[in-house]
Amino acid sequence: MLVCVGSIAFDTVETPDHVAEEVLGGSANFFGFAASLFGPVGLVGVVGDDFPESHLDVLRSRGIDTAGVQRVPGRTFRWAGRYLDDMNVRETTNLELNVFGSFDPVLPEPYRTSGYCFLANGSPAIQERVLDQLHEPKLVLADTMNHWISGARDEVLHLLRRVDGVIINDEEAMMLAGRTNLVAAARAVARLGPGIVVVKKGAHGSLLVAEGGVFPLPAFPLEEVKDPTGAGDCFAGAFMGYVARAGDRSVATLRKAVLYGTVVASFNCEAFSVDRLRTLTTAEVEERARQFADLLRT
Amino acid sequence: MLVCVGSIAFDTVETPDHVAEEVLGGSANFFGFAASLFGPVGLVGVVGDDFPESHLDVLRSRGIDTAGVQRVPGRTFRWAGRYLDDMNVRETTNLELNVFGSFDPVLPEPYRTSGYCFLANGSPAIQERVLDQLHEPKLVLADTMNHWISGARDEVLHLLRRVDGVIINDEEAMMLAGRTNLVAAARAVARLGPGIVVVKKGAHGSLLVAEGGVFPLPAFPLEEVKDPTGAGDCFAGAFMGYVARAGDRSVATLRKAVLYGTVVASFNCEAFSVDRLRTLTTAEVEERARQFADLLRT
Repeated sequence: MLVCVGSIAFDTVETPDHVAEEVLGGSANFFGFAASLFGPVGLVGVVGDDFPESHLDVLRSRGIDTAGVQRVPGRTFRWAGRYLDDMNVRETTNLELNVFGSFDPVLPEPYRTSGYCFLANGSPAIQERVLDQLHEPKLVLADTMNHWISGARDEVLHLLRRVDGVIINDEEAMMLAGRTNLVAAARAVARLGPGIVVVKKGAHGSLLVAEGGVFPLPAFPLEEVKDPTGAGDCFAGAFMGYVARAGDRSVATLRKAVLYGTVVASFNCEAFSVDRLRTLTTAEVEERARQFADLLRT
Repeated sequence: MLVCVGSIAFDTVETPDHVAEEVLGGSANFFGFAASLFGPVGLVGVVGDDFPESHLDVLRSRGIDTAGVQRVPGRTFRWAGRYLDDMNVRETTNLELNVFGSFDPVLPEPYRTSGYCFLANGSPAIQERVLDQLHEPKLVLADTMNHWISGARDEVLHLLRRVDGVIINDEEAMMLAGRTNLVAAARAVARLGPGIVVVKKGAHGSLLVAEGGVFPLPAFPLEEVKDPTGAGDCFAGAFMGYVARAGDRSVATLRKAVLYGTVVASFNCEAFSVDRLRTLTTAEVEERARQFADLLRT
C-alpha cells in the first residue's frame, strides 16, 4: 500500500472568475484522490469536529483508506488564497492551522510496513516522526516549503538525508540549493541526500533528477485553468501511485511516473477543489497519457 | 535558400560573472550562424563604417551569404544589457539604433525568389517592405516585440495577416492576445492570421501551435548558462533552416524544427556572443538532438 501523511483542509479559493468557499482541500486529500487511480492508498491526517463524515465517505467511495485520519476536538485546518490574472501567481490570504497545528501523526499498524510513503508538506520534525514509524520502507518521498527551508533549514537538511526523494517546486529547489539555475539547483538538492528530485514548475512542467540524469517534461497544455490548487499534490499522488504499482524505482518507471503525475495534475486544474478528481477514471487518465506521450514524440 | 532580414550589432553583455564588450550580436547574426548548420542562408542587414570586414569574413567562412548586408556611413547598431542573478531576467541598459534606425532593406535579386524568409524583430513597416519584395514565398515567419505591439499594434496586426507564422516570446504572445494563459494566447495569435505560432519561453522551453494542435517542448536542460543573448534568434535560425531543408511545412516537420531550434539555442547559451556557434558542427547538433529526443521519450 501507499501511505500519505498530510493535511486535510477547508480551502477558500478566489480566482479572477469565481470564489469557492470552504471546499475540500489539503495535501492528503488531493494526493489520495490522485493515487487511488493507481492502487490502494491510505491517508494519515487530522480533522476537527466540524468536518462532515460525508467528506470521508467520498474518499472511501474512491477506495481510499481513512484509518489514519484522526478526528479531534476543534476546528479543521483552513486555508484561503487568491489567484491573480496570471493564474501562475497566488497569494495566501488566510491560514488557520487549527487542529493541524498540534497534529501528531500516528500510523495505523498496517501502514507501518506499507513500503511506499509520501510526507506531504509539514514541519520536518513531524515528517521525521513519521519516518521513525516506518518499517523497512521501499520508497519515501517528501515535500517541504519555503517556510521550513528558511525557518528550520537544519531540520530540513536532516530530513533530506533520511528520505529517498523529494517532490518540491522550483522556488523551493532554488532556495534549498542557493542556485538560480534550476537544473543546477535540482542536481544540488539530489546531492543533499535524496537521490530522486522532482521539481514542479506549474504551467511550465517539471524536471526529474534520478541516477545523475535530468529529465524535463512540459506541462500538459491546458487552454483553461479553473483552479490550480492541489495540482502539486495530485502530481505527487499520481507519481507515487504509479511507482508503487510498478513496484520498482528504475529511471524508466520514474519517468513514466512524472508523465502520469503531469496528466492527473492537469485534470485537477479543470475544476475547483477535488471536483474533477471525484469522477476521474483510469480510462481518462490513460487516454490523456497516450495523447501527451504523442505530443512529446518527435 | 533561406533569407533573414534583421539586425547586425555590437552587443555589450553583463552577466553576474562576466562582461563582454562590443561583441558580435544582432538577430541576423545569430540566425545566420544557426541556419547555416542546415543549408544555405543569406542575410539582409546594415552595418556602419566601424564594422570590421573580418566579422563578415567569419560569417562567410560558415557559408553564410552576405550579399544583402549593406555598409553605410555611420555607427553600427549598439545594444547593451545586463542579466540578473536569475539569468532568465534581463534589462536593457543601452540602445543606439545608429545606422539600423534608417535601415531600408533591399533584397538582392536572387533573394526575392528564395522561398523561405524570416523577418527578425524590426518595425512592422520595414517588415512589410520586405514582404513586398518577395516573389511567391513558400514560408515567411516573423518576430516582433513588446515595443511594436504596444506602439504600433495595428501595423503588427496587419503584418500578421500577411505572414505564415510567428516566432515570439511568451510575453509578446500574451500581449498580442490579451490573455495570460499561454496556450490560449498562442491559439489566439494563430487566429490573428499566422497559422504557425511558436512561443519561446526561455529556460522553460516552447509551445508550437500548428494545424490546431498545441505541442509543448521543454528547454534542453543546461546546468550552466553563460549568456542567453541571441538564443531566440538561434532558435528561429535552426527552426527555419530545418524547415527550408525539409522543404515542407507539415506538422511533423515543424515539430522536428522546434526540437532542432531548442538544441541549437542551448549550444548558444554555453558561451558569449556567437562564440559557441563559430565552431558548432552538425555532428554535435545531431548528437544533442538524439539525446534530447531520448530525454522526452517515455
